[in-house]
This record gives sequence, C-alpha cells and structure tokens, in this order.
Amino acid sequence: MDALAGGAGGPGSLGPLLATVLDALEAGTALRSGPLPAGSPAEIAALVAEGLSGTRGRGALARLTELLAYGAADPADPACAAHLHCPPLAVATAADLAVSALNPSQDSWDQAPAATALETALIAELAALVGYDPARAAGVLTSGGTESNLMGLMLARDQKLDGIVELDGIPAGVRPCILASAAAHFSVQRSAALLGLGERAVIAVPVDRQLRMSPEELERELAEVSWAGRTPIAVVATAGTTDTGAIDPLDAAADLAGRYGAWLHVDAAYGGGALLSDRLAPLLDGIARADSVSLDWHKLGWQPAAAGVFLVRRAETYVSLARRAEYLNPVDDEQAGYPSLLGRSLRTTRRADAFKLAVTLRTLGREGLGRLVDTCHELALAAAAAVRAEPSLELHSEPVLTTLLFRYRPPGPADEAAVDELNGQLRRLLLRTGRAVVGRTELPGEGAGRVRLKLTLLNPHTTVGEVGALLREVVGAGRKVAGERAG
Amino acid sequence: MDALAGGAGGPGSLGPLLATVLDALEAGTALRSGPLPAGSPAEIAALVAEGLSGTRGRGALARLTELLAYGAADPADPACAAHLHCPPLAVATAADLAVSALNPSQDSWDQAPAATALETALIAELAALVGYDPARAAGVLTSGGTESNLMGLMLARDQKLDGIVELDGIPAGVRPCILASAAAHFSVQRSAALLGLGERAVIAVPVDRQLRMSPEELERELAEVSWAGRTPIAVVATAGTTDTGAIDPLDAAADLAGRYGAWLHVDAAYGGGALLSDRLAPLLDGIARADSVSLDWHKLGWQPAAAGVFLVRRAETYVSLARRAEYLNPVDDEQAGYPSLLGRSLRTTRRADAFKLAVTLRTLGREGLGRLVDTCHELALAAAAAVRAEPSLELHSEPVLTTLLFRYRPPGPADEAAVDELNGQLRRLLLRTGRAVVGRTELPGEGAGRVRLKLTLLNPHTTVGEVGALLREVVGAGRKVAGERAG
Repeated sequence: MDALAGGAGGPGSLGPLLATVLDALEAGTALRSGPLPAGSPAEIAALVAEGLSGTRGRGALARLTELLAYGAADPADPACAAHLHCPPLAVATAADLAVSALNPSQDSWDQAPAATALETALIAELAALVGYDPARAAGVLTSGGTESNLMGLMLARDQKLDGIVELDGIPAGVRPCILASAAAHFSVQRSAALLGLGERAVIAVPVDRQLRMSPEELERELAEVSWAGRTPIAVVATAGTTDTGAIDPLDAAADLAGRYGAWLHVDAAYGGGALLSDRLAPLLDGIARADSVSLDWHKLGWQPAAAGVFLVRRAETYVSLARRAEYLNPVDDEQAGYPSLLGRSLRTTRRADAFKLAVTLRTLGREGLGRLVDTCHELALAAAAAVRAEPSLELHSEPVLTTLLFRYRPPGPADEAAVDELNGQLRRLLLRTGRAVVGRTELPGEGAGRVRLKLTLLNPHTTVGEVGALLREVVGAGRKVAGERAG
Repeated sequence: MDALAGGAGGPGSLGPLLATVLDALEAGTALRSGPLPAGSPAEIAALVAEGLSGTRGRGALARLTELLAYGAADPADPACAAHLHCPPLAVATAADLAVSALNPSQDSWDQAPAATALETALIAELAALVGYDPARAAGVLTSGGTESNLMGLMLARDQKLDGIVELDGIPAGVRPCILASAAAHFSVQRSAALLGLGERAVIAVPVDRQLRMSPEELERELAEVSWAGRTPIAVVATAGTTDTGAIDPLDAAADLAGRYGAWLHVDAAYGGGALLSDRLAPLLDGIARADSVSLDWHKLGWQPAAAGVFLVRRAETYVSLARRAEYLNPVDDEQAGYPSLLGRSLRTTRRADAFKLAVTLRTLGREGLGRLVDTCHELALAAAAAVRAEPSLELHSEPVLTTLLFRYRPPGPADEAAVDELNGQLRRLLLRTGRAVVGRTELPGEGAGRVRLKLTLLNPHTTVGEVGALLREVVGAGRKVAGERAG
C-alpha cells in the first residue's frame, strides 16, 4: 500500500492500480444515466460521506474513484455544456500521469532538470504564438486566468507606482486605479483587493450589447481619472469574456493605455484558444502589443486543470517578482549555469503543468488543435441557429467563440422577473434530474438582472444533433416548470 | 489522437496511452544511472530542445515521457534528498489520474458535484487533525504553503486593519507589520509584497541556534512596534522550517499574538506531517490556537504536487474573500441548496486535489501514514549519527523532523569562505555526474553566509545503508574538489 510511483519499481506498482482506476471510471460512469448524477446536492453529499466513512484499505481507490466518476459533471458528455470546463484529451491526461509519478517541482532546477528546460522552451513557443519576440518575452505556467490576471496587475502596480512597492508597500498619497470593462472577469476586482488597492480601484468601462468594451468610453474614463489626479496603472482588455466570448478592441486599448502610461493586460484566458485557428486568430489582432497576457489551455486547449499561462512582452518587467532563496537559487549555482524559474511564479512548489501541453502540441500540432477550436465554434453557430428556430427560446447574440446565451420564454405575456425565476428553476430541474448541465448568468449593462441560460461548447465530439437534443431538454424543463407554476 | 479521457469511451482510449507512459517511464528511468541525468543544465536543455523539435504525431507521448523520466531528479531514488520534494505514493498517483480524466473544477458545484462534497468532508477531517472544531473551521486545498501563507496574511490584513480593505485598499496612515522568525519561509516576505504592505513590513524575529523563534525576542519586537505606533497585524509561527525543521514555540506565540491583537498564522507546511505520528504530534502542541494554518501533503504526505491545505479556526474570518459571480454561485441556486466553494479560494478553476489525499488517507489510514513519518524521522536520526561519525563532516544540529544540515570540512586548517565555496562546488559536482541530489543552504543569524549541505529525508523506503552510501558520495566529491583546488 505504500509503494512509490517513481523509481525503477514505479511502473510495476502503478500498473495494477491504473487498471483499477480505469475499471472504476467505467463503472461509475455507467451508473450515471446522464452528464451528472440525479439528486440534490445534499443527497450526493450523503453518498460521499457514506463512501468516505465506509472505506478502508486496499478497496479505497476503486470505491472512491467509482464515486468520483458517478458524482462527476462530466464535460465529455454532450449534455454537459455550462462552463469553460473542457473535456480533457486522453493524450494530455496520460501525459499528466507521468508528471504525477515523477513529481518534478519547477521551483528549482535540481527538482526538475528536464522539466525546467521544457517549460522554458514551451513559454518561448507560446510567446511566439501571441506574437511576442520570444527572445525578449518571459512567462510561466499558472493555475489559471485568475492567477495570471493577478500577476499582470501586480507587475503593473509595481512598474507604474512611484517607489519600490515590493519593498515599501503602496506609497502614500497615490490613488491608483485599473480600467476594465464591465464584463471583465471578476478576478480583476479580486486581484485589486488582494494587491491592497481595493476593489473600488477598478473602474468598470461600459460595454456594447455584445459586451465589448467601448473604446470611446475607455478614453473618456482615462481622461476623467487623470483629471481627478488618479494614476491609471492598468487597462485590462478581455479577449473572450466568459459569457459571450466578446473580444475587446485590442488595438484601441493598446493605443489608449500607451497614451496614458498605463500597463495593458490582455485577459485571453478563454479567447487565447482562437490563436490556434487560422480562421479565428485575426479576432485577437493587437494582442502582441499587450504588456502581459493570460492564456488558459484548460479552456480552449483540452488540458486537464490546471494549464494556465502568464506571459510578459518584456522579461525585465518581471523584476519585482525576483527572489533569492539560499536553498533554491544561490548565486554561485546561478553563475555556474543552473537556471531557476523561482522568480517567474507566485508559487514555490509547482507541478510541471507544461508537460501535458507540450505533449499535446507535439501530438496534434497547432493545426490539429485549431481544427478542434473551429469545430466548437461551428457547433456554437449551429446551436445559435437552433435557438433562433425555436419559438420558446430567445437568443441573446450571435456567438463570437463557442458560447451562446439565450432565455426560455413561455408563450404568452410574462413578467420579466417571473421569466428570470423560471429560467433559474428549469436549470436546477435539469441538474436535479441528472439530464443536463447548462449555464446561467446575468449580464452587466442593458438588461442587467435578467437571468440568461448559457451553453459553453467545448466538446469537439458533440454533434449538432446532440446540441439539438440538449436544447429540447431545456425547452421540456421550461414547459414543466412553467406548467407547475401555472398549476 | 483527439480522443477524450472522459465519458463512456474514456477508459478505453486511456488504456493503451497509459501503457505507453508506463513503458516510457521505465525506459527513461533505466537510461539514468542515478537520481538525475549526468550533464550540465545546458546539455540537458539541448536534449529537451532536440526532443521537442524532432517529435510530431503519435510518437510524442512516448518520446517526451521517456525524456521527462530520463531528465528527472527522481525523489524515489535514495540519492535524491535535497528538498521538501517527496516521492509520491503509487496509490495517490493513480487517484490523481481519475482527477485528470474527469476534470472536476471546484469553483462551482455543477462542475464537481461529488468532488465538492469530498473536499468539504476532507477539510473537516483535517481541521479535526489540527485540533480545530470542524463545525466552526473552514478551509480549502491550495497549490502549497506559499499560497496558504498568502491567504493567512491576507485575512489577517483584512481583519486587523481599519476599514474595508478589500473594497477601499489599505487605509492611509496605518503602518501594518508582520512578525515572523528570521528562519520563516521567504513566502512571508513575498506575500507582504503582493498584499501591498511591502517586504519591509515583515519584522524578522531572532532565532536560536536550531532556528526556533525566541519568545522573548517576539515579545520585545511586539512591544517595540506597538510603541512605535505600528499595527502588528500578524504573527507567523513556523512549525517545521525548511532547513532545520525547527518548530517555533506555538503556545507562547499564541499568547503573545492574543495579547497584542495580532492574527496568528502557523506555517506547518512541512511540520504538519508530524500530526500523523503519535510520537511527533506533541511537537505541534498549541497549533489549534492559530487563527490559520498551512499544511502541505506534497511534503510529509507523499502526494504528487499540489496538495496544499489552508485552514482557519473560525469560518467567519473568511469574509473578505467571499465573492458572488452570477455565472458561478447565483443567490437563488445557493438558496436552493447548491453549495459553492468559490469564496474559499484565491483561484477560480481549481483541480480536485482533495481526491488523491482522501484516497491515500482511506488506504493507509492516519496510522499508516504516521508510520512513514516515523520511518523518515528515524532515518534522519541515523543519518545524523553517520555524519557525526565521519571526521570530514560537521553536523549542524540534531534533526527535529526529517532534515539534517552539515558541512564538508577538509582535513587541516581552512578558511571558512573557502569551505563555503568547496561545499557549493561538491554539490554541483554530484549534480553534474548524476550521482546525488543533496541540498545546500545558508542560515540566518549566527554563522550567516556559511554554506551548509542538507539532506531532506522523505523516502520511507530508503535504508540506513543507502543514506550511508549517499554520505560517502558527498565525502568523495568533497575530496575530489578539494584535491583539484589544491592541485
């Protein structure tokens, strides 16, 4: 039971355990009849509690894996389409096993000789994909867009405020602010809180109906904060908002950030996947002008979480994160040619998440991954057409990437607040019966507070017919809830 | 090549790919004759570059996995003993595969129904292990001690400063500070920088020879900062310093933090493993009085990275991290009983790292894991005895947990700076020849700047004989380097 995964004996010990896992995954998945287990959260928690309390010894791996599979919201099921939560490729998952077994840690070379070189090479490759000069750029694998956005805003703060913020803290008297669209990810606010600036330092720039930041509004806000004596340290442009996939005007944002001396961070956690597709990549024109970029390959990249990436255009802007730890990167080792990635990351121990992505890129190539992106984009367009064709569904706007927003609307006149409630209820009915996982959201700006349903299509094996069936499930649940409310 | 890991077809697609990985792990490991590949970092980087550029298509998984295994510093090899970098258990590694395949994400229930319940149950179990009341405590899985320490200090800042820091930023006029021992982990300084307080907000409390924080010095520093009108927002006590495993006096720290109104964070990232052992657990008496705690099961817990845990004694102190995102945790879903872990974490997308730990705890039990902790502790004691018996090695101090520090000292009189250089060189010689991975460090306080070698013994299968052989490698390399310098 205490056999190790590494060393000469590792593969031999792992073999039978992996067979157990595969059998249990199969059994647990078969017990579910849909994308998630039927039942309330309390019922599923009770099952888990029973599994945990009743299991000891060698049987635990099989029993708990079966429970995890049974109790999953499996993104590989065509009816699981709520979030930026992709079904991982088998090849990426297999590569991730090698990482678990060898357990390299990226915080020092002598914990990860090959993995250090591999991450360095991958970062250069991704910098080139963004349009950066790989010889001048730098970056790191992260836990996701939230960490990447935090890093971009931290470097912006440390570069743009007077003094040595990393040593002395935020200087007194300055009133820094960050400009981001009203549809930017909530991690922008969260980062401002963490960084000691406060959430109110984030100024929400109005968006158009598709949730794109308006360049005129950005210019107006930048002028306003400057007149008010505030320091606009950063502009955050989103390339692919979570809900509509909207891509802010990147060139205009770069022009304006440059004019006002602000750092430009592009949050391409979702939309960065478009860089893999010849057809969609032009949507991100201008991204190479950003000071920093977030990319997430556990979204449009089919990696198991986590596979976030943070990039900066100029390696020297990383300066405030550089650290010396005598047990990790002493000067004499560095002079002797031992490289260290410690100063690239907010973390210390760090799993080699670069490996699965490198294997995937080498197996499918950019072209192969680009085809998967295109397939999901086409699926979203087909889904939008199906929504438009269904009288009880109301499309919000044409898909930009792979999401679409819509609303179930029962026939006849209805109070909008009642329709909001109905949409929330029908979604929960689908969850409770285990038949579908669809998203729900509310948008900023016009129509704020309106509950909208969302499909996030990230499964390239899903067919147009399966999306149609999923929409029929939504309509059926809507009718059922509306009928119960009326009855 | 684009087969998915999940769904009904997942196990069938994974099977042959996992067999490929196991074969490649075996082949890559066999090509190495020691714990890491011989050669300079540049030579290994060239091999990786060649592997990446020459590989396309189906062969990539095998070729790159073999390269990763060949180029690993494998913690399962008895001669790899530098860092808090443990060899993972096969059962934990197999459990982690299930997580990669199903890809639950802990930021919303509808991405992780069973995994949400499982993490919640595990956190309660770990809270009890620390001595917290599980009904009042809260916590989350993290990427490691660095993130956990950041969370503790963020909550301390938000609780202890006037105003609503998360909304308005750090109030003007206050001069917050954090007290931590001079041997505390560098992530305390790094967190202060990130949080907008600046590294200089961290006051280094002097330590004794074994690197334990002196309670008298802590009291003196607390009094001093208070007289100076500063706000001591937090005391950080370390339970297991990286280098010596020293455990600060926790009860005294709790008394003093309480008296001065400071938050007490206990960084037990390393020493938390002692809680698994009946014999060693008393070393951590007082930990239950901490406001927050860091634990890392990828150190003394034999999990593949990451398996960090952050705990707070009182769930309500988490308040400044609570967030509402309409697409993740809308009010009506929450009222309908759908729980959300979003406000528990600094991250959004989050891998289900709780699963492998739950499986491990159920397979081996606390007792089984405690035996592994005891074994490593005994190995460290035996290693210390062997160092003491070898005239050319100089022991720093008796091991507390599973590390020991020592210094190679050539016979005859020697200039200390030359001995420093020699120890750095001999370590690099061991790395370059691929024969051993030993640590090196420099300590604060008395003897600062002295280079010391370190063994971190985390492999419970390593024998006393193998540790002896490792020490003979060190002595041999020392003689070789000393000879070359003399010659």
